[in-house]
Amino acid sequence: MTEKIESIRNAPIGVFDSGVGGLTVAREIIRQMPDEGIIYFGDTARVPYGNKSKDTITRYSRQIIRFLKTRQVKAIVIACNTASAYALEEVKKDLDIPILGVIRAGAVSAVKATQNGKVGIIGTEGTIRSGIYETVIKEMMPSARVSGKACPLLVPLVEEGLLHDSVTDEIASRYLSELKAKYVDTLVLGCTHYPLLRSTIKRLMGEDVTLINPAYETAIELKALLEKEDLICCPGVCQPQEKYQFYVSDLAEKFTNFASSILPQQVKETKKIDIENY
Amino acid sequence: MTEKIESIRNAPIGVFDSGVGGLTVAREIIRQMPDEGIIYFGDTARVPYGNKSKDTITRYSRQIIRFLKTRQVKAIVIACNTASAYALEEVKKDLDIPILGVIRAGAVSAVKATQNGKVGIIGTEGTIRSGIYETVIKEMMPSARVSGKACPLLVPLVEEGLLHDSVTDEIASRYLSELKAKYVDTLVLGCTHYPLLRSTIKRLMGEDVTLINPAYETAIELKALLEKEDLICCPGVCQPQEKYQFYVSDLAEKFTNFASSILPQQVKETKKIDIENY
Repeated sequence: MTEKIESIRNAPIGVFDSGVGGLTVAREIIRQMPDEGIIYFGDTARVPYGNKSKDTITRYSRQIIRFLKTRQVKAIVIACNTASAYALEEVKKDLDIPILGVIRAGAVSAVKATQNGKVGIIGTEGTIRSGIYETVIKEMMPSARVSGKACPLLVPLVEEGLLHDSVTDEIASRYLSELKAKYVDTLVLGCTHYPLLRSTIKRLMGEDVTLINPAYETAIELKALLEKEDLICCPGVCQPQEKYQFYVSDLAEKFTNFASSILPQQVKETKKIDIENY
Repeated sequence: MTEKIESIRNAPIGVFDSGVGGLTVAREIIRQMPDEGIIYFGDTARVPYGNKSKDTITRYSRQIIRFLKTRQVKAIVIACNTASAYALEEVKKDLDIPILGVIRAGAVSAVKATQNGKVGIIGTEGTIRSGIYETVIKEMMPSARVSGKACPLLVPLVEEGLLHDSVTDEIASRYLSELKAKYVDTLVLGCTHYPLLRSTIKRLMGEDVTLINPAYETAIELKALLEKEDLICCPGVCQPQEKYQFYVSDLAEKFTNFASSILPQQVKETKKIDIENY
């Protein structure tokens, strides 16, 4: 019996995203829980998720979860705001392992951080349209005033590498002016790409506005969840070479290069799978 | 026998794209062949195609062609530059009806238009990486000097509606400066979204540079092909309400609104299908 429990405890954590953005969440998990193994899946054949429907994103998430289950993961993190917003509650129903998204952790931190109760959320069209950040924040803080703003151009600008560029400044400034005018004192970076624009957003919003990165908070929530479920792995069990495994639905080599630039260690290999078959 | 041939002649033309861009091709077909029926498919659940691999785009194209065949189309137009570049030659092999893409027609026009033999191509990463415009142009004009430039941000800017905007000007200007420096006298708008930026591109390139819109040329090529194959429909056969049928893999209502703004008539309905099942 003890042996079985140990093999479950030492199983990897499944992490998925529409593409590379979720690597910022994987990076936080690696930093905070260096002994845990990770199976990462990026849906690069169907990226982006932010401008697609709830039905479609839920169907995609179910396929990915079926794939991750074939890899015997002990828990799953939806490292994508849009999929967390649209699919988490649906997929939770028929899942027998713990699963969490990035929204709750971000919302909890925003509630802790705000002084004036005015919280801004930036995200994809899907995340903002779902209104989920507002719902979760108001459950905890009914008096909160939550303002969401969809920023659809920020993801392509980041993916083009225009992190410090006058065009990105101009576009970000247009998106953020609405939230500035509402005097939010806390801003949730509600898309995994946005932490890469942190310095630009900080400068535009001003020093007094607290920026919340759900990736960091999600890793803390994951650790607490694994502790509660007695699922923390035994130190030193995972072999370094197989500790982190990467899968995508397209363009494995491009992913490998990007992942190596985001994560603390070199990624050797990414495997391509046909996710539609799951 | 005559009756069977007539029913084939009167069958609709299948047109597909990764999303809404191919509607500019459908619009040209409607203008030039007002009697023909059209079945349009937009792959809105997996859009965009421009930054995905040849294998993936070919697999998606095969699924869509299987779907269009269930609708008894008499011919197929790949109204997407990336899918034309990557998949046309592959899917042609096992198809028993005529199929054409948008590349050849654009290349033929460019060769006709150029005076100095210097031709520029703008398109998605996939289209430019494939080098297909250069290959096809050089088959016809071995002395041509063809310069390709991938413009990945133009599609999201168009989809955000920033058609006349300082940011779009700045980004387009960066992309086009390289081609201007090469003194191209002809520029192929090698992505179905780009004709919507025609006036900006014209202003930046200058009056002396001829812009080629493959949508227009493809409709001419299609008409010639249908005539050659004796597949022109009998006038007045298609009922107006079912003459143009629209299918997508996601967000049918959003598509209906966009299509109505592009096409000469109101689109009443778009049906959503699960393309992964084909």
